This record gives sequence, C-alpha cells and structure tokens, in this order.
Amino acid sequence: MFNLLRTVTKTTGTRLFSTSHTMQAPTVAVVLSGSGVYDGSEIHEASAALVSLTRAGAEAVCYAPDTPQLHVINHIKGAPAEGESRNVMVESARITRGPVKPLTELSSASADAVFLPGGFGAAKNLSDFAVKGGDMSVNSEVERVIKDFHGAGKPIGLCCIAPIVAAKVLGSSGVTLTLGKADDGSGKWPYAGSIDVAKGFGANAVEKSVDEIAVDEVNRVVTTPAFMYEGKFHEIHDGVAKAIAALLSLINS
Amino acid sequence: MFNLLRTVTKTTGTRLFSTSHTMQAPTVAVVLSGSGVYDGSEIHEASAALVSLTRAGAEAVCYAPDTPQLHVINHIKGAPAEGESRNVMVESARITRGPVKPLTELSSASADAVFLPGGFGAAKNLSDFAVKGGDMSVNSEVERVIKDFHGAGKPIGLCCIAPIVAAKVLGSSGVTLTLGKADDGSGKWPYAGSIDVAKGFGANAVEKSVDEIAVDEVNRVVTTPAFMYEGKFHEIHDGVAKAIAALLSLINS
Repeated sequence: MFNLLRTVTKTTGTRLFSTSHTMQAPTVAVVLSGSGVYDGSEIHEASAALVSLTRAGAEAVCYAPDTPQLHVINHIKGAPAEGESRNVMVESARITRGPVKPLTELSSASADAVFLPGGFGAAKNLSDFAVKGGDMSVNSEVERVIKDFHGAGKPIGLCCIAPIVAAKVLGSSGVTLTLGKADDGSGKWPYAGSIDVAKGFGANAVEKSVDEIAVDEVNRVVTTPAFMYEGKFHEIHDGVAKAIAALLSLINS
Repeated sequence: MFNLLRTVTKTTGTRLFSTSHTMQAPTVAVVLSGSGVYDGSEIHEASAALVSLTRAGAEAVCYAPDTPQLHVINHIKGAPAEGESRNVMVESARITRGPVKPLTELSSASADAVFLPGGFGAAKNLSDFAVKGGDMSVNSEVERVIKDFHGAGKPIGLCCIAPIVAAKVLGSSGVTLTLGKADDGSGKWPYAGSIDVAKGFGANAVEKSVDEIAVDEVNRVVTTPAFMYEGKFHEIHDGVAKAIAALLSLINS
C-alpha cells in the first residue's frame, strides 16, 4: 500500500478546500488554536465555519500560532495529560486536513475578513483567560491581527469564548459582542462569568441565544454564543453558520 | 479561574449531546477511530454525522476502540511523528467533547443503528487496510459489531474509506456499497484503488458522486463517498447528511 501512503503525504501539502478562484470570491482567514474543545479549537465550531465558508463560495485560509499548547487535556478525563506536549499549529492541521500557516503570516492584507472559532484553545493558547480571568493578556500575534483587521475596517468574527479576546483588545472601542447569556435558570450557560470580565474591559456584552448573533456594524465585529451554551450539535452548527453569513455580508457593506 | 477549570472537568463527564429522551427518538451508535483525517476519524465527516443526528432528533452515542493508534501523523508534514503514541478512544473524545465508550460495550442491543465515519483511522485503527490492502483484516471488535448489527437487521452506515470494512465483513453477503468513483479524469478521486479491493471481497461496489449515497436495502447498509472525493467542506457535509437521513429511514422500514 505504498501508493496509498504516498498519496496521503502528497495531498496534505495541497490546499484541499480552495474554492473557485474568481476575483469575486472573498478570502476569509480562520485562526485556529489546536484541535479539541478543552485545549484547542472546538471541532464542531471550526467545521461549521469552514462548511459555511465554502458553501458561500468563500476561500478559507487557516492560520494558527506555531507555539506549544498551554497543556494537553485528556478529553475523557477532563484533566491534563502529564508529560505530553503538542504544538498548536500542528494540531490545528487535523481540522484543516493539512494546510495551515503560521499566524505570523496573517495580516489584513491577506484576507477580506478573519474568524476565530471557540474552544478552550482561545482561552489557553490565543490568550490566558482560562488561567488569569480578568487579569488576562492576549497572545501578541493575535492582538496584532485583531488590531490590524479592526484598523483596516475588515470584519472580525468570533464565537463561543473567543469573543473574550476581542473584548480585551477592542474594549476601549466599546465593542459590542456576545458571550451568551448569564444564568437564565436553564443551567445551560456554565461559562457566564466571562460576561462580567468582558464588561470590565469596556465591551458592551449583550445577551444572545445560541441561535442568535451580535453584529457591531461600527467596529465590524460579529459574534455568536455557540458552545457557551450546552446545546445540541446542530444548534451550534446553525449559530456559527449565521455568524459566517453576517461576516460575509459585512465584507460588502 | 479555578471555577472555570472545575466546570470543564465536570462537563466532560456529561453526555452533552443527548437529545430529548422520548421513547420514539432513535439511538445511533457512532464508531470513531481517533481525531484527524490521517490517523483517526475525519473530523468534518464525524461532525456532519453528529449534526445530522441531533438535527433529526436522534440520540448519538459514541464508541471507539480503547487501543493505541497505529501511529501518530503530523498533519502538516503528512508523515509519522516518531516516538509519539496516542489512544484511539482518548483522541476520539476530542470529537465527542468528552463522552465516549469502549467499543467492547457496543452491541446491537445498544442502538437502533450504527455509523462509521471515514478518515484513515478506519483503515489504520479499525482495520489494517492502509498497510495491507487486499490482505487486510478488520479489528475483531469492529467485525463483531458489524456482524451483530447485520444479523439483527439493524442499519449500518459508513462513509469515505470506512465502507472497506463492510466490504471485508459483509462481502460474502454481496453487500452493495460505494467507495466513490474510479478515476473519472477529474483527478479528484485519489483513493480509487480501494474499489477493486472491495470487489475482491465480493462486495458490489457501485460508483457514486460526493452528493450521492448507495443504499443496500437487503443488507441495510448506507454509504457515501465523502472525502474519497477531494471536495469542498460543504459538499462532504451534505453528502454525510444524506447518508444519515437514509440510515434513519432504514430504522423505520
């Protein structure tokens, strides 16, 4: 089966998810943070974003920091796997099927918009919110990218916990975003503490359901709760699809 | 942020993707083989299956072999990561967000149907097709599960390269399935060699496009090419959604 294995090696170097290369097709950068909800990008949110982008005829180009993960979580135990180390960009390639660029190569000149899926990778590898809460800082490359796209007036989309990064970087601009709802009695919003942190940064954190999005037309930021809500897979998929549709609309507005 | 981390630990032990527990909701077992196309389950195929199942009101319960992966592939390089070892069930939990059962616990009494996404995990961890081709054998637990569901008349769904497992186990029953198309000149069917192998096992391998499914109503087997075709993310998502819809229809037929 040498031929089979050789084919694998070859195709991992190919951009498998390119869409047709017309001048009109927007390019959207997707910034990943690993692969797996508890130490990387949330897989279903990332998939929903890529599915929605190619469905709309957009070209998705994926980026990730070429750095070690904060840690590796055994996703069955929900606890760190001692002694293991993984690279954020290498693990992100599991979602992209190979093609992923170092985040250092992304600028507002590279794409028409940028999207950050959630998952704890956004709070562990793109920032340190999971460890430091309100005292968090944002990875310097992520901060540069957010400021660059914001300054260029190019749309920024984020979901799940990722909007905490926008709250920190763009809070002084009074960015409007959602991190889902505070406890509404359903017991399905376990991460609501992030809302107060975002408000502390100056963000206008509005409460939205899993099937809703928040659009800040001034700052050109789109957000949706996704798995901030303990929902079903299709609920999260559809919420992310709405956010991507709004992100693409902002490109042309 | 201790509370945040504690919440993570807690929720990983919860079945996050249960649907409403009515007597009518079918339960579908999803058999995973890791997380990442080149050494595990193809992430987008698995996500499409779970999204389609919860959208239809079905309950998805995930299983995986509690065994080491054949190897770990660096998905950027498309080459083995020397010295690394990962467990199939532990990595599969990245797709399930925690809840996954050992494959030894799955029988036809556990679910109304079973679905196997593709990815090279099906050819490396659920079988050894990627290494041995036509001389392949199937993991004994996977073989037991396929025979059990087949014998009980409960539907079996598979996509991408996973149907090679059904071809091996059910070839003597003349199972009809698809592994996509032989080279049609598009250059987008890189794994077409698997079709001849399936035929060698006695399977009736029919050629289907990425947006088509093959349904064997006698053997109650549903298949679709998925990423056997180098398609766009939404094309694969929609093909898997069609297969899941057909699988659920078979439960009630």
